[in-house]
Amino acid sequence: MISFQCDYLVGAHPKILQRLNETNWEATPGYGCDRYCESAKKRIQAACAAPDADVHFLVGGTQTNTTVIASILRPHQGVLCAEEGHIACHETGAIESTGHKVLPLPSSDGRITAGQVEKILREDRSCEIREHMVQPGMLYLSFPTESGAIYSKKELADLYNVCHRYGIPLYIDGARLGYGLASPRNDLTLPELAALCDIFYIGGTKCGALFGEAVVIRREALKRDFRYFIKQRGGMLAKGRLLGIQFDVLFEDGLYFSICREAVTQALRIRRAFEEKGVGMYGGSTTNQQFPVLKKEQLAFLNERYRSEFWADAGAGRRIVRFCTSWSTPEQDVEALLTDIAVMPD
Amino acid sequence: MISFQCDYLVGAHPKILQRLNETNWEATPGYGCDRYCESAKKRIQAACAAPDADVHFLVGGTQTNTTVIASILRPHQGVLCAEEGHIACHETGAIESTGHKVLPLPSSDGRITAGQVEKILREDRSCEIREHMVQPGMLYLSFPTESGAIYSKKELADLYNVCHRYGIPLYIDGARLGYGLASPRNDLTLPELAALCDIFYIGGTKCGALFGEAVVIRREALKRDFRYFIKQRGGMLAKGRLLGIQFDVLFEDGLYFSICREAVTQALRIRRAFEEKGVGMYGGSTTNQQFPVLKKEQLAFLNERYRSEFWADAGAGRRIVRFCTSWSTPEQDVEALLTDIAVMPD
Amino acid sequence: MISFQCDYLVGAHPKILQRLNETNWEATPGYGCDRYCESAKKRIQAACAAPDADVHFLVGGTQTNTTVIASILRPHQGVLCAEEGHIACHETGAIESTGHKVLPLPSSDGRITAGQVEKILREDRSCEIREHMVQPGMLYLSFPTESGAIYSKKELADLYNVCHRYGIPLYIDGARLGYGLASPRNDLTLPELAALCDIFYIGGTKCGALFGEAVVIRREALKRDFRYFIKQRGGMLAKGRLLGIQFDVLFEDGLYFSICREAVTQALRIRRAFEEKGVGMYGGSTTNQQFPVLKKEQLAFLNERYRSEFWADAGAGRRIVRFCTSWSTPEQDVEALLTDIAVMPD
Amino acid sequence: MISFQCDYLVGAHPKILQRLNETNWEATPGYGCDRYCESAKKRIQAACAAPDADVHFLVGGTQTNTTVIASILRPHQGVLCAEEGHIACHETGAIESTGHKVLPLPSSDGRITAGQVEKILREDRSCEIREHMVQPGMLYLSFPTESGAIYSKKELADLYNVCHRYGIPLYIDGARLGYGLASPRNDLTLPELAALCDIFYIGGTKCGALFGEAVVIRREALKRDFRYFIKQRGGMLAKGRLLGIQFDVLFEDGLYFSICREAVTQALRIRRAFEEKGVGMYGGSTTNQQFPVLKKEQLAFLNERYRSEFWADAGAGRRIVRFCTSWSTPEQDVEALLTDIAVMPD
Repeated sequence: MISFQCDYLVGAHPKILQRLNETNWEATPGYGCDRYCESAKKRIQAACAAPDADVHFLVGGTQTNTTVIASILRPHQGVLCAEEGHIACHETGAIESTGHKVLPLPSSDGRITAGQVEKILREDRSCEIREHMVQPGMLYLSFPTESGAIYSKKELADLYNVCHRYGIPLYIDGARLGYGLASPRNDLTLPELAALCDIFYIGGTKCGALFGEAVVIRREALKRDFRYFIKQRGGMLAKGRLLGIQFDVLFEDGLYFSICREAVTQALRIRRAFEEKGVGMYGGSTTNQQFPVLKKEQLAFLNERYRSEFWADAGAGRRIVRFCTSWSTPEQDVEALLTDIAVMPD
Repeated sequence: MISFQCDYLVGAHPKILQRLNETNWEATPGYGCDRYCESAKKRIQAACAAPDADVHFLVGGTQTNTTVIASILRPHQGVLCAEEGHIACHETGAIESTGHKVLPLPSSDGRITAGQVEKILREDRSCEIREHMVQPGMLYLSFPTESGAIYSKKELADLYNVCHRYGIPLYIDGARLGYGLASPRNDLTLPELAALCDIFYIGGTKCGALFGEAVVIRREALKRDFRYFIKQRGGMLAKGRLLGIQFDVLFEDGLYFSICREAVTQALRIRRAFEEKGVGMYGGSTTNQQFPVLKKEQLAFLNERYRSEFWADAGAGRRIVRFCTSWSTPEQDVEALLTDIAVMPD
Repeated sequence: MISFQCDYLVGAHPKILQRLNETNWEATPGYGCDRYCESAKKRIQAACAAPDADVHFLVGGTQTNTTVIASILRPHQGVLCAEEGHIACHETGAIESTGHKVLPLPSSDGRITAGQVEKILREDRSCEIREHMVQPGMLYLSFPTESGAIYSKKELADLYNVCHRYGIPLYIDGARLGYGLASPRNDLTLPELAALCDIFYIGGTKCGALFGEAVVIRREALKRDFRYFIKQRGGMLAKGRLLGIQFDVLFEDGLYFSICREAVTQALRIRRAFEEKGVGMYGGSTTNQQFPVLKKEQLAFLNERYRSEFWADAGAGRRIVRFCTSWSTPEQDVEALLTDIAVMPD
Repeated sequence: MISFQCDYLVGAHPKILQRLNETNWEATPGYGCDRYCESAKKRIQAACAAPDADVHFLVGGTQTNTTVIASILRPHQGVLCAEEGHIACHETGAIESTGHKVLPLPSSDGRITAGQVEKILREDRSCEIREHMVQPGMLYLSFPTESGAIYSKKELADLYNVCHRYGIPLYIDGARLGYGLASPRNDLTLPELAALCDIFYIGGTKCGALFGEAVVIRREALKRDFRYFIKQRGGMLAKGRLLGIQFDVLFEDGLYFSICREAVTQALRIRRAFEEKGVGMYGGSTTNQQFPVLKKEQLAFLNERYRSEFWADAGAGRRIVRFCTSWSTPEQDVEALLTDIAVMPD
């Protein structure tokens, strides 16, 4: 059975594992105050061209989103996001558990527009009974979105401008940031993306690490006391160096970028194979997740050798499924899949 | 200027005020442990034909909803409600502030159906990644809804059955309960309504009292330690007797029912006047709130003498506004309005 | 049976009741946006000599403390207070329910010193593992304290200076403010007290009103969006004018001050009677609460005609009880008590 | 520089690292639903002689404490613990951040007694104004405590009995469980400890793992929906197998026990060396943490070659410091320390 089910199927990139082995017996201070964390922070500041940014390492995505969002909002504020945003759907109400409403905006592929955000903020500011409603206090975006879409430089700049005009911070969830940056359609560099938001995180769990997400804080006001929030939310790893070591490896010699690029290349080969077979694709993802709309017999055929993930019903007996590549996808697995797509039932 | 803007414009019914005057100098224990609260509880139990129900008095609606809902849900659970439900829209995220997501269901007039609720609960129970999503832990209904609709006995029984089949409590927000029961279309008695839910509240603020809501708890498991929750949420009035006295008067000789009935009678006269004038009515409210869809010139004409509340834009320059009657609406105000509706521009 | 049990035994001062009667039929906007609230705010600003202060009206003390404290603290911060502070002991964890730790300081009579506060703040600032501990984010004082003590002008100024040197706000719980200001030992005027804190509340519930507390916000940064917090915490009364009317009466012609002064006069007569009888007094309260340490037989004797409140065991079979006067204490009740104290067993 | 500063200085036990290397390329399902987690659960159930217990793996201690405690308490309840309990002091108010008060009990070495707990519970049950105070809803113990003390079988049984008589669950924080069980003074087996509480966790982070804590739930009522709480609190690792693999290794062939035993042996050699030198020891720890009370010159002497951790001032210029051994302490480091203790200034 070959699995394309998700992008967190295996362990870590061999270079990370090797470094964990090499450093295992070194005694370091705890809680992220070690030299590996220091080195990784410097590399990430450099990669973002943001030498003044604060960088913190957390363990997982839900933890990171909760910690960041709860650190920013005041009690009467909520967070704007796309209705398919991870925080709105798949984090068991983690944001609400910290007291804040998630304010979902309609979206077809997980992207939202500056126009949508401005409309909400303008209405809120002019509403006579404002204080009976949750105040939008920040904007959450995913890059790429949960269904693989990315924002163009223009779209992101417009969103950032609206946020700043209304005085709310913009936060980007980069769980799959590497795959988004590697998309052939992407026109944003990492420094450009970093400059067009107030705080974001670089996902490690799905991009080569055993686990780990690197929060990058650019806006001065959001930096204060952030380590308290990490500790309070249970995200301060005793052996914090494990995070430092992993990100140090990922941002040495551009490893993060090269492994994500390769995964996207493989994903686009799969996309083309489906398209050549005449299969419709849900959304226009040019990142590592692909969503073919398959007939029953097609899915049954592929299910014999490949594991994919159910995404949604498409009606008429057809189903949208997700095929995911990652930094760890073996090329021969993709070759096998391409061959089988070509010969599956029409 | 005559105001039909809302149903909390003036003080209290004269009988309540009189009783407050009469009892002013009596020394009683605090925190709702006085004989007036005792008496009021007995009267409410009798009116609900629920001698075993627990009855508690709180000050306002948002406070009551928050206290009840937070007392029922476990941390990973949310509350199902109509998308226009008061807790979803107009309580500044009070429910979320206690850690719980509000799970809105689409609705045209604030009512939701047993079918909608069952679908959600069935999907939740069968979902493979359930634990990544908020668990629906209870159902919130408004009777009447925020736009004046009421549930029939059959509809409520169906909802209650679904809830019990899936093991979640049903809670009814009765901020305007008296006006709902007084609707000519209503086929539920108070005892029947009480028997078709697990917990509900009888609204006093909008139905004759200075302030006050009476929570009636029928389900045994929800009774435990409820006074702690009232205290913790800031709802335990030092001079709790003020609540007891008011509800004692309201449920003596059926005052609550008779004053609400009169308000609905007046509201329906207003409805008929608009209909006779050819004005469309938003929703089918047969309670104390009426929502004419008015042209610009009509609204301008009425605005000269009457205060109503903007509800929503109806397109084509027309606006939905709310005209509200209450236990305190003077008949001559209604007469004046009827006359003016008849002569306003077509 | 004559009750000296607490200061919320009866209804409201007759002038308040009269005004509620007179205004009962007037239609006003809801939620505190009426002319009575406006007028009361102006009077309170004037009484505090703080024309730029924001004034808001809430219903009760726990609600007020919770709303104020949760509006100020960030998630990782807690509130410093005396270990007998009301928020630490008798509010069912209301502060913790909003996510914040109460940080108690040892105290014999409910007062804490500038030295204590400074020590905590200095240690916190210099601690190497600060982020593993809750950050003191504000100071809560009661004036008078729960056991009747008051701060001198010097003591309060010292506390305020420490708070400002370390950048944390000082909040005063004035549930019994009127009785504190009326103490013969008090050397603070209301304007002076208002100028020596950032935010405080003037208690109405125990000082003549049916209910109600007036929050006065002096520090600019704490004013923002305060109405949202009131609404979210369930404290925004639909008929907000009820609060405005009551405070308008209390601050017209100095009623608040004169009725509290009379209550303190009576309390001090009781104190002297106990002292003349040779009874020890717990604490040095010169406000409306008095705490004699009574022998079993003395208490039994007084219990036959008077209701007091158990405060604490004093060992050797003796008990500390509380005798409370209030604005509503009839002089003949005090006379009776004085007579009986004189003749009770030694 | 040789470090005895804490027990999370280095990486993982070599066997764990080896297994992580061996399994790195295997594709497994995410979120703890893999065969390694299954296997580790079975081994832990067996080690606890609790085949019906539920076992869950989390990443760190604060996260585990928060998740467990918030899953158990209702909103008006708090958690009893020793005043030096980790949740009371060093978790940045994580428990309070979930809405619950920590109720500290005085303690000299982190242990509390059945008598203390019973007194609190009895007073709470009989208090007339119970609902104004936080209800004790569970008991938290550390085994060993933060200062290295352990409970005897008798002490734990007494605590468990009190808890059950009053109907509250007992939870044991076993961050250093292995070191406690390995104490020569310990008379509890792991199955006995497991049978004398309702829920506990077996610490991995400080006992051989890179990270990880294993929650063992024995009481039926506490098992329900626990995975939701893990997810909501950000503790559900995408590559959950990393936790399974580590605990699988630790509980294969008793590795967990043997490595902890060795650490305790070394710690006791250090204790004896200090005692032979005439140094007083703070507390009677017979586990892996030792707390000598050192004079200024002694500490200065040792600080030249060894890193220890400041614990508390002991007055008269002396300081209590912590020397910690762990599964990873090299024997030669201990030998060196023993030699230097022998020759340090008197």
